[in-house]
Amino acid sequence: MHKPVGQTRWAIAEGYIPSWSHGPEPQFTSHETVCLLNTTDQDAHVEILIYFSDREPVGPYRVTVPARRTRHIRFNHLDDPAPIPHDTDYASVIESDVPIVVQHTRLDSRQAENALISTIAYADRA
Amino acid sequence: MHKPVGQTRWAIAEGYIPSWSHGPEPQFTSHETVCLLNTTDQDAHVEILIYFSDREPVGPYRVTVPARRTRHIRFNHLDDPAPIPHDTDYASVIESDVPIVVQHTRLDSRQAENALISTIAYADRA
Amino acid sequence: MHKPVGQTRWAIAEGYIPSWSHGPEPQFTSHETVCLLNTTDQDAHVEILIYFSDREPVGPYRVTVPARRTRHIRFNHLDDPAPIPHDTDYASVIESDVPIVVQHTRLDSRQAENALISTIAYADRA
Amino acid sequence: MHKPVGQTRWAIAEGYIPSWSHGPEPQFTSHETVCLLNTTDQDAHVEILIYFSDREPVGPYRVTVPARRTRHIRFNHLDDPAPIPHDTDYASVIESDVPIVVQHTRLDSRQAENALISTIAYADRA
Repeated sequence: MHKPVGQTRWAIAEGYIPSWSHGPEPQFTSHETVCLLNTTDQDAHVEILIYFSDREPVGPYRVTVPARRTRHIRFNHLDDPAPIPHDTDYASVIESDVPIVVQHTRLDSRQAENALISTIAYADRA
Repeated sequence: MHKPVGQTRWAIAEGYIPSWSHGPEPQFTSHETVCLLNTTDQDAHVEILIYFSDREPVGPYRVTVPARRTRHIRFNHLDDPAPIPHDTDYASVIESDVPIVVQHTRLDSRQAENALISTIAYADRA
Repeated sequence: MHKPVGQTRWAIAEGYIPSWSHGPEPQFTSHETVCLLNTTDQDAHVEILIYFSDREPVGPYRVTVPARRTRHIRFNHLDDPAPIPHDTDYASVIESDVPIVVQHTRLDSRQAENALISTIAYADRA
Repeated sequence: MHKPVGQTRWAIAEGYIPSWSHGPEPQFTSHETVCLLNTTDQDAHVEILIYFSDREPVGPYRVTVPARRTRHIRFNHLDDPAPIPHDTDYASVIESDVPIVVQHTRLDSRQAENALISTIAYADRA
């Protein structure tokens, strides 16, 4: 790669962690995932800010994506400064000190069969 | 956040509210949702215009997204100036007086298991 | 709307019409849909070109989206100059004489429960 | 087509090949697909680089998309220089010597009913 792929700021307006699941753990636990790709030769220091409908934003949650690596992070697992409540609408803004690519996926296994969604996040082309 | 994320005009070409559902209410009522994220320090005054295949556009539907908040709004719940008919193709344009991020989601529970779709809306980069 | 939303050229790299379905017709017939939104005050004259893996492109298929209207068109229904074969990979390029917004959706009902996908098409920002 | 549609560099941050499936082969084998569309009059020489969470990137995988053709390639089928492990998070960067359009789809048939996701990949607008 000659120059880095991506942007330093991204947003996901949709967010919702279902509160129950069907199927074998942990693959079929209902979850929302943010997929981060860092193609650069430097570690990416990423900060995620979580927005709600009825309270001030919480964060930043800090995540490092090493150089030339991808990390797929479940929002369910973010717990510092605070876990994200279930059955609650939220949204997120992702900022990095080097360009990254961000994609959003949800597996919903509340009913017997799982449903999946995925979309490239909104890239803020500064 | 140093400067606002997003754009002031967005469009969703797909729209369709199924007319029946399976599963516990209200989570499994078939619905289309527009997710709005306002990262700015001012309230966002949002106007949604609904387009149809066989009649003039209806709206604007007015929604406020407070400063530093997200709102996930079901098209099913919009009723002023008129509810959106079910089993009818529609599309929408979303305009805001401050930059926002818009994502579109549908839960379809017409059959026993729910299906989900989601995509970041089309951002009109003026 | 003060100025038109969208672009005049769009592409969808994914295309595949499943050859069988479950559930009541026509809502649950497996289908691929292209959703077109024309917010302008002029009719949009749209041309769709279909690409395959093993033969020359077919088209253009001509569609009109009236001023201030949306049309959700099933690829299954395009038949001039030729129907699109089922169980065949294809892709599409959509061109319009006025700016439009394009979104792609598939309902797959080959198994007992339907699956849905949707994504905003690739907007060629000329 | 007067000028080529697309970009020469794309990224998909999400990647995961489930390790088991339900339903008739090969349509219902769980798979991830990258859909490539080349509208130009020259063959596209495409290189795919695969990123992981815990090791150096693997590739490039080389694919040719002939002039005016689309190819829908299952990541499951890439095997040179090495097959992509199942049940493993990955991401991909796609580079081409002519502009192309890239879309990402997953069919997950681990449970009795299949789930589908699709999104246009991230286009790196150089």
